[in-house]
Amino acid sequence: MNKKQKDCGTVMLNLKQTAKFLKKHDNYIILTHASPDGDTLGSAYALYYGLNEIGKNASVICPDVIPSKYNYFARKTDHVARENATVIAVDVADQRLLGDLQEEFGNDIDLNIDHHISNTKFAKNLYLDANASATAECIFELLMQMKVNINNITAKAIYTGIATDTGCFKYSNVTAKTHSIISMLYEYDLNAPEINRIMFDTKSKKLLELERMVLDSAEYHFDDKCILLTVTAEMQEKTGCSGTDLEGIAVISRSVEGVKAGVTIKQNGADSFKVSVRTYNPLCASDICKKLGGGGHNAAAGASVKGSLAEVKEKILKAVYENMEEAYAGASVNK
Amino acid sequence: MNKKQKDCGTVMLNLKQTAKFLKKHDNYIILTHASPDGDTLGSAYALYYGLNEIGKNASVICPDVIPSKYNYFARKTDHVARENATVIAVDVADQRLLGDLQEEFGNDIDLNIDHHISNTKFAKNLYLDANASATAECIFELLMQMKVNINNITAKAIYTGIATDTGCFKYSNVTAKTHSIISMLYEYDLNAPEINRIMFDTKSKKLLELERMVLDSAEYHFDDKCILLTVTAEMQEKTGCSGTDLEGIAVISRSVEGVKAGVTIKQNGADSFKVSVRTYNPLCASDICKKLGGGGHNAAAGASVKGSLAEVKEKILKAVYENMEEAYAGASVNK
Repeated sequence: MNKKQKDCGTVMLNLKQTAKFLKKHDNYIILTHASPDGDTLGSAYALYYGLNEIGKNASVICPDVIPSKYNYFARKTDHVARENATVIAVDVADQRLLGDLQEEFGNDIDLNIDHHISNTKFAKNLYLDANASATAECIFELLMQMKVNINNITAKAIYTGIATDTGCFKYSNVTAKTHSIISMLYEYDLNAPEINRIMFDTKSKKLLELERMVLDSAEYHFDDKCILLTVTAEMQEKTGCSGTDLEGIAVISRSVEGVKAGVTIKQNGADSFKVSVRTYNPLCASDICKKLGGGGHNAAAGASVKGSLAEVKEKILKAVYENMEEAYAGASVNK
Repeated sequence: MNKKQKDCGTVMLNLKQTAKFLKKHDNYIILTHASPDGDTLGSAYALYYGLNEIGKNASVICPDVIPSKYNYFARKTDHVARENATVIAVDVADQRLLGDLQEEFGNDIDLNIDHHISNTKFAKNLYLDANASATAECIFELLMQMKVNINNITAKAIYTGIATDTGCFKYSNVTAKTHSIISMLYEYDLNAPEINRIMFDTKSKKLLELERMVLDSAEYHFDDKCILLTVTAEMQEKTGCSGTDLEGIAVISRSVEGVKAGVTIKQNGADSFKVSVRTYNPLCASDICKKLGGGGHNAAAGASVKGSLAEVKEKILKAVYENMEEAYAGASVNK
């Protein structure tokens, strides 16, 4: 935890108390996290439209430029003066995620609305529902609790938050309540197929070009149980892809039938690579990455590895091989 | 319509009447369509398990081999003798879709349960809900109407049918009711994330290899508004991909940002190609394919084109160009 962060004194609010808090004040600044995604933006704007509906002034501030693909709900909001404003953060698990806004607002968040179990409790008040699939699910419930009228655009923002944080309802964070909320949102003029097309079925030409190069780089090892995909600095330069563009590559590595360890190697310096590992039982991504000086979850982990690409590959293959030996030792699993 | 098919005399049943029909008889043969997908199989097995629950004998018969990925709900069923059986078809819009079972059963279906508006009414009785996202949605409602106990495996089968026919809730056939039903299914031991992984996030090594080759073939035209993807006979031979393996390729062609016409060219003979066109407004796939001697819907159409690959590409580009000229003529659309 960052030294600047408070680790005590956060008041935990329940749904009713949070709704009451939101009704009490009149001028709000709503903050999203940096590198904004569909959930932080959907949550911020849904809350913004909801507060507008009951006559509150509100302003959404994002530490980074909002990608234009969110333009169907993200608009320029009013200016709310800092002095009299109540500051709300949405979907921000740690104040460091506020990016460029951390210095100004980090220790001065009046209310944080979040769904991450890992929330570091840096705000004065926190509404945390770790069972919610997305923060947008929390916002929907708050607006319901406040009996705020939901508009079509509010519905689009909430839908976007939930759909993007669940991989369009594919992941393990989805619950009966998630689908029940979405069912209610379908009563609005949602145009969900168009939202889904923009969010899930649109790829930039440069990303397609990068995927082509990455597939060209595919190497299979250990009887096709391990795949290595490589994103060199040259590929990034040639295609102009970087940062979030590269997030989808690790997904490819775990989608190949029969593969138990999908490894993506991204170059981020002359002799420096970021390694992402995705595994299926009985292999363990966390164990593999620990051997490489990194760590993470059982099914998804990472490490930073130094050396030439050939050296890095050798280190990775050794770590994967060791984990396979451990995992399959004496087990009845089909090697 | 096939000459053998009846085009009259089909009795249209409502939900209540269909439930009554299913309770009345004791021995059922349930037929799926050929080239079985998640909906026809999910519907057949959900109905099978439901009928079992209320003491009926039932057998599921599929005209083709059931892919092993459906093994989590598709099992060997009992044998039901043809003589005394009531024959039900599920998700079968036309008797020709029964494949090898058409000759034996085509004119002898007692009840058809379907959601295709294009249903040719070939069965003696038909329960058709064209607003249902999937036939599995109809089966769920029928089991509810019959007050049949739903088991975990029944829930998995219904979930699979709905999820696969809606592209995991992405498409325009999804309604509020769809999500409401899924919400109810989440009360069972569904393990939806694992189902979704098998259905949506698993690719064979050979398909990944084909995708690599197809991306290598990508050609952009008309200021990147048109993409041509080619699947040659050689690519199919080298990778071992054919038939349903190739279905996903057209999806790539329509997912590239800025592309208004995505064209996939599949070789199916020495000088013979199957062309699939996907368009966005203001272009029209149907108009483009008509120029090539084919047809289809506004956003998705196809044609068979003869000639060398170079000749076929030239014909396609001419058709796309003409459609662009028509579409953008005098319009305020940004070219």
